[in-house]
Amino acid sequence: MSLVLTQFLDRAVHLYGKKPAIIDEQGKRYTYEAVNERVNSLSFGLDSLGVEKGDRVAYLAPNTLGMYEGFYGIFQVGGIMVSLNTRLKPRDYVYILNHSESKVLFVDYDLLELIQPVREQLATVKTIIVHGLKEDKEGFISYDRWLSSFPTTDFPRVELQEDDVSTLLYTSGTTGNPKGVMLTHRNNYLHALSTMHHLRVNDRDVLMHILPMFHVNGWGSPFYYTANGTTQIMQKTIEPKEILKKVEKYGVTVMHMAPTVLQSIMDQYMKVNPQIDQNVRIIVAGSAPPKAFIKQLEEEIGWEFYQVYGMTETSPLSLASYISSEDEGVSNDGYYTLKVKTGLEMIGTAVRVVDEFGNDVAKNGKEIGEVIVKGPGVMKGYWKDEAATNATIINGWLHTGDMGTIDENRRIQIVDRKKDIIISGGENISTIEIENRIYDHSSVKEVAVIAAPHEKWGETPHAIIVVREGQEVTEQEIIDFTREGLAHFKCPTIVTFMEELPKTASGKIMKVKLRELVAQL
Amino acid sequence: MSLVLTQFLDRAVHLYGKKPAIIDEQGKRYTYEAVNERVNSLSFGLDSLGVEKGDRVAYLAPNTLGMYEGFYGIFQVGGIMVSLNTRLKPRDYVYILNHSESKVLFVDYDLLELIQPVREQLATVKTIIVHGLKEDKEGFISYDRWLSSFPTTDFPRVELQEDDVSTLLYTSGTTGNPKGVMLTHRNNYLHALSTMHHLRVNDRDVLMHILPMFHVNGWGSPFYYTANGTTQIMQKTIEPKEILKKVEKYGVTVMHMAPTVLQSIMDQYMKVNPQIDQNVRIIVAGSAPPKAFIKQLEEEIGWEFYQVYGMTETSPLSLASYISSEDEGVSNDGYYTLKVKTGLEMIGTAVRVVDEFGNDVAKNGKEIGEVIVKGPGVMKGYWKDEAATNATIINGWLHTGDMGTIDENRRIQIVDRKKDIIISGGENISTIEIENRIYDHSSVKEVAVIAAPHEKWGETPHAIIVVREGQEVTEQEIIDFTREGLAHFKCPTIVTFMEELPKTASGKIMKVKLRELVAQL
Repeated sequence: MSLVLTQFLDRAVHLYGKKPAIIDEQGKRYTYEAVNERVNSLSFGLDSLGVEKGDRVAYLAPNTLGMYEGFYGIFQVGGIMVSLNTRLKPRDYVYILNHSESKVLFVDYDLLELIQPVREQLATVKTIIVHGLKEDKEGFISYDRWLSSFPTTDFPRVELQEDDVSTLLYTSGTTGNPKGVMLTHRNNYLHALSTMHHLRVNDRDVLMHILPMFHVNGWGSPFYYTANGTTQIMQKTIEPKEILKKVEKYGVTVMHMAPTVLQSIMDQYMKVNPQIDQNVRIIVAGSAPPKAFIKQLEEEIGWEFYQVYGMTETSPLSLASYISSEDEGVSNDGYYTLKVKTGLEMIGTAVRVVDEFGNDVAKNGKEIGEVIVKGPGVMKGYWKDEAATNATIINGWLHTGDMGTIDENRRIQIVDRKKDIIISGGENISTIEIENRIYDHSSVKEVAVIAAPHEKWGETPHAIIVVREGQEVTEQEIIDFTREGLAHFKCPTIVTFMEELPKTASGKIMKVKLRELVAQL
Repeated sequence: MSLVLTQFLDRAVHLYGKKPAIIDEQGKRYTYEAVNERVNSLSFGLDSLGVEKGDRVAYLAPNTLGMYEGFYGIFQVGGIMVSLNTRLKPRDYVYILNHSESKVLFVDYDLLELIQPVREQLATVKTIIVHGLKEDKEGFISYDRWLSSFPTTDFPRVELQEDDVSTLLYTSGTTGNPKGVMLTHRNNYLHALSTMHHLRVNDRDVLMHILPMFHVNGWGSPFYYTANGTTQIMQKTIEPKEILKKVEKYGVTVMHMAPTVLQSIMDQYMKVNPQIDQNVRIIVAGSAPPKAFIKQLEEEIGWEFYQVYGMTETSPLSLASYISSEDEGVSNDGYYTLKVKTGLEMIGTAVRVVDEFGNDVAKNGKEIGEVIVKGPGVMKGYWKDEAATNATIINGWLHTGDMGTIDENRRIQIVDRKKDIIISGGENISTIEIENRIYDHSSVKEVAVIAAPHEKWGETPHAIIVVREGQEVTEQEIIDFTREGLAHFKCPTIVTFMEELPKTASGKIMKVKLRELVAQL
């Protein structure tokens, strides 16, 4: 039998048909049977619009029922889900929609203003359907009205192969045009099997979708929580107050999110001290928060912290930062030291750290190399970009562009992006390590470290700092402070102060842009 | 990346290399690195014997380190593991070894007497290597001596595709010659991913191999416990006293076994009342034990009972009898009623109950149909028997030959083997249901129910009974007793008493033989 994602919803409908599947953004409950009926209508609707096997259908939406059902509705007609980051600029949507040649676009009413100004520039989108629009207006179709005009009965599915593309995800890219990552049904399916095991997903879970589903399919969560018959709560915005209320009200047991979102929820928690009895697991990816932060979460709030690592090109997860049986007996401090490390390879996936010649670096937690990944989650390739695909997947190994170390217990630690690493006197220096040290300085609001050319060492670290309001600090103070905490060769020799740092739509510091700005100084 | 079983041991060696992997039958500990070195030697050895990709290598052994390493040693050279049931007769081994055209045979010293008398009849086996034989003797090779003559370094693996056969398993078959079930790497790999999730396998587990590994690869346990870095204890025999001591000594947390074995362990437990603090999960397949039995296990002994269902042709597991979120709030009695039911379909596998026309039976827990299974665990086919393959896998659905019911919650209950079902007045009657009722009679030691021809109803139930020593019971008493507990149309109209019932090597009652015997009465 082919590994096709529709099986996951099938199982939920079969075994958990009368159970609440989705509690939507307005608090309305839908059973798995009811969701499946809506999915069927959606498939009939797409079919009526001429969407055929392999066609792309785009979504621009936060976490809503409409977004969730999009996945399964599209899969039934054999289509490909193109989910758009909601924080981009209108011109980005033009690029992605035209590049992916999407036929239909679904937009949330709240985001319609991002599409309206560029509507005429969309070369292939024939139909725009709007979630939350009451009546058809100016050529925009009301989703509810449209959906209700189609049958809810079983849709005669298009036959799928497991290597057919299921989702096409454009990576934000801090430079150049975004690239479309093709993930097949098999990619997402096998990633789901391994991830549900590592995250201990089960039918007693209540998941709140905080992590946007447009972000690598919410790390695949609409697939593996559905397979397990979990109730899923939709959350459109990042409002800590509202989120905590829902955790209490719905008995939420698991949430995936970025560390910054967790921070804001924790702040709110400490303020209101809510009555939450159930066990809660927090799955976090991205840069690891500090130890003290995780300790507070686990010991004061009593929630479990679980860090994972991945990237769009690997479906996404490949490392999980669990405390293994080999870590038993570790001290309290050691426990948190392990929790902030990036993680151990997940079942089914091999992860290596290699030098520029492709040889494994020493397993000492110090030597830095590039993290490469092989496994069933590795993408089929970049959409219409064979050159980029071939530059990224070499002999079956996906080159992440992330630099890391691996210790004697095979625990991997990401230390930098490859293009950001500084090579000084033949040593690889992690800019993240330097930034983390500088962040400890009480006057520093934001910092980014880049490479500056150096006559003797080749490169030297250059720190660009935004100072906190009302504070003052000198270049020498920063250098001295860094030297107290880091080996001298890692310390910046140049410090520049700026009013603000250039950032992407999703809030990442754009070092490429920063280098340009610094060059002009 | 191909789904190939060698990855599971690779991960264990990588992440759990210094951890005890195997505690062998003599209590000796081997780390995953040490086991891997032995596996490498085995592969070099097989290579030296001319074993090539696709060649069959047979094992006749109880649960030992030698048996375990056989799987991975064979996979590295691209070979196929043929594991033989240790309870067969010498002529059966001749048939299977010749039919599979096995090149090499590994035998445990304790079982050598089963091979010695038929050695000359083995047409393809060129080499016989004996576990536990101190020195080469009469052309039998000492495993230890032989193994130690090969390098322990990484073996240059033969490239495998996921659809290559990994294990060839001969089903015992209550009639005719045994059939060889071909399970591919993909079959066993995907079965492992789903099963480890459902059984909550983890690296803190300590598994005791009680279920023979020759029995559908120990339900795949050498694959998924290895992937998780679990410590595995080898147990050669079913001795309750020894087993309980090992549970205590090694902190065993999980065991797979047949219900009869569990019964003997429980009896011993109640006798000696050992000090076992850790949580223990018991995974059981085969006919479900009575409710009182499970209640005793869970409430008095405190071990968790977990029933699964499968067959060789499906890798094997397809149903798991877990208490789902939909069963919350069930009474204590209802809880055990659910636990004895066969189960719910596992993730990745679809299971249906269909009538003779292939239509789903009503989901009322009453209507009986054949259980059919579709999923990634469904075998590639029967070895050199295309006709049998085509008769068993129809449109991708494997016909199990088991008859069952499905209730409104999609819980499946196996009620009989297809060929044993009785059709009386158009009604399907489960012989197991009748047997269960008759077993409740205090004078009955063993019972089997078969169909007798009936002028009016077509067929009628005929019970063949072995009476307990020192007890007496009449035909009418049995009929009356059955009528008190079952609908009249299900009750036997004929009762025959016998001294013993004909059984297979593995202890199953052979109804085919019984019918022949009864016909001669």
